[in-house]
Amino acid sequence: MHYENFFPFWSSLTDADKESIVRACYGEKLNKGQIMHRSEDTCKGLMSVVSGSLRTYIVSEEGREITLFRVFGGEVCVLSASCLMDTIDFDIIIEATEETEVMILPSVVLNDVMNRNPQVELFMYKAATDKFSDVMWTLQQILFKKIDQRVAGFIWDEISHSEENTLVITHDEIARYIGSAREVVTKVLKYLAMCDAIELKRGKIIVKDKNILESFL
Amino acid sequence: MHYENFFPFWSSLTDADKESIVRACYGEKLNKGQIMHRSEDTCKGLMSVVSGSLRTYIVSEEGREITLFRVFGGEVCVLSASCLMDTIDFDIIIEATEETEVMILPSVVLNDVMNRNPQVELFMYKAATDKFSDVMWTLQQILFKKIDQRVAGFIWDEISHSEENTLVITHDEIARYIGSAREVVTKVLKYLAMCDAIELKRGKIIVKDKNILESFL
Repeated sequence: MHYENFFPFWSSLTDADKESIVRACYGEKLNKGQIMHRSEDTCKGLMSVVSGSLRTYIVSEEGREITLFRVFGGEVCVLSASCLMDTIDFDIIIEATEETEVMILPSVVLNDVMNRNPQVELFMYKAATDKFSDVMWTLQQILFKKIDQRVAGFIWDEISHSEENTLVITHDEIARYIGSAREVVTKVLKYLAMCDAIELKRGKIIVKDKNILESFL
Repeated sequence: MHYENFFPFWSSLTDADKESIVRACYGEKLNKGQIMHRSEDTCKGLMSVVSGSLRTYIVSEEGREITLFRVFGGEVCVLSASCLMDTIDFDIIIEATEETEVMILPSVVLNDVMNRNPQVELFMYKAATDKFSDVMWTLQQILFKKIDQRVAGFIWDEISHSEENTLVITHDEIARYIGSAREVVTKVLKYLAMCDAIELKRGKIIVKDKNILESFL
């Protein structure tokens, strides 16, 4: 585990703080769909994604989900420690979107180090502001983009995170990622398939022509 | 001008930094509707609202506006200095919603002080994260709330910021604040008037019964 890769503040820490972080950190393996964090009942701490990916989302009273952003391998999920940041007062849910391995720095230890070292506190708020930018992007997608752009954009982003041209995903899952309804997503996917951008198989989407797909973005 | 009221980091500054801030700050009077900031071309600096209020919003390519949050007298608008925060990469517009007096701490001086004092940098990112919470609230309003709740909520918030029961505002302005269409807002206002929550006059909305209005929230 290379702590300095996940924590840019690593070099500013005292040896004692480095040691207490190394001692406190623990790994956890999550299954696909496993919920890792709910604002109202957990504040596990800083979550570093070793492999796999996390999805952060909100839910309406009626159960409608809006995905805010994703966190991929090599990135840190700071909102799972939002209880330590008093300017954050909204509730989110974090779940694993595939088999995911995370390393958790528990809130208690993080809080101690934060109080001793302003660079750690600054890192937390900078990382949160970075997610603010992600949410602004999502907001503009949802409010200003047409649904075909959003579905095409989602497939495009997913493909760019992997080396394959095949996405193993259901229409319902896409709907939850982009905050739409399954029926709408199915209609758009059929349209994208008709345009030869993608090919649809049971539980799979194969990107056939990246240029055509890109023309929908 | 009481700098310590606007800047919580004031007591952590050296005398030299205090002096350079006092020397650099200048006041500006804005007319209603005057645009104060556009991400792509201005980075004036930290804006403290002495009186009046500011509106921060985004615009789609088709000209649709979404109000993200408001900044009232006594508050600081940190996003007008977003060029100094490298984790912020979205474009916003800030305008005065009434006759407004602001005090501006120019970016150049702010940047110098920020580099010397981590408390100032921390203040900036904390304040930005606070706006993140505001935007999350707005996002949930837009995506999850019904339009009558949003119009009633807007009137409710406006009234709570003043001592009067009368709002001087057009239907078109409300539509832009809540990111809807004028026709829709007019329909909802008529409905709220029919329920005796409000009374409609030309260019004015009078809250007749706060309890009835509250029942729509």
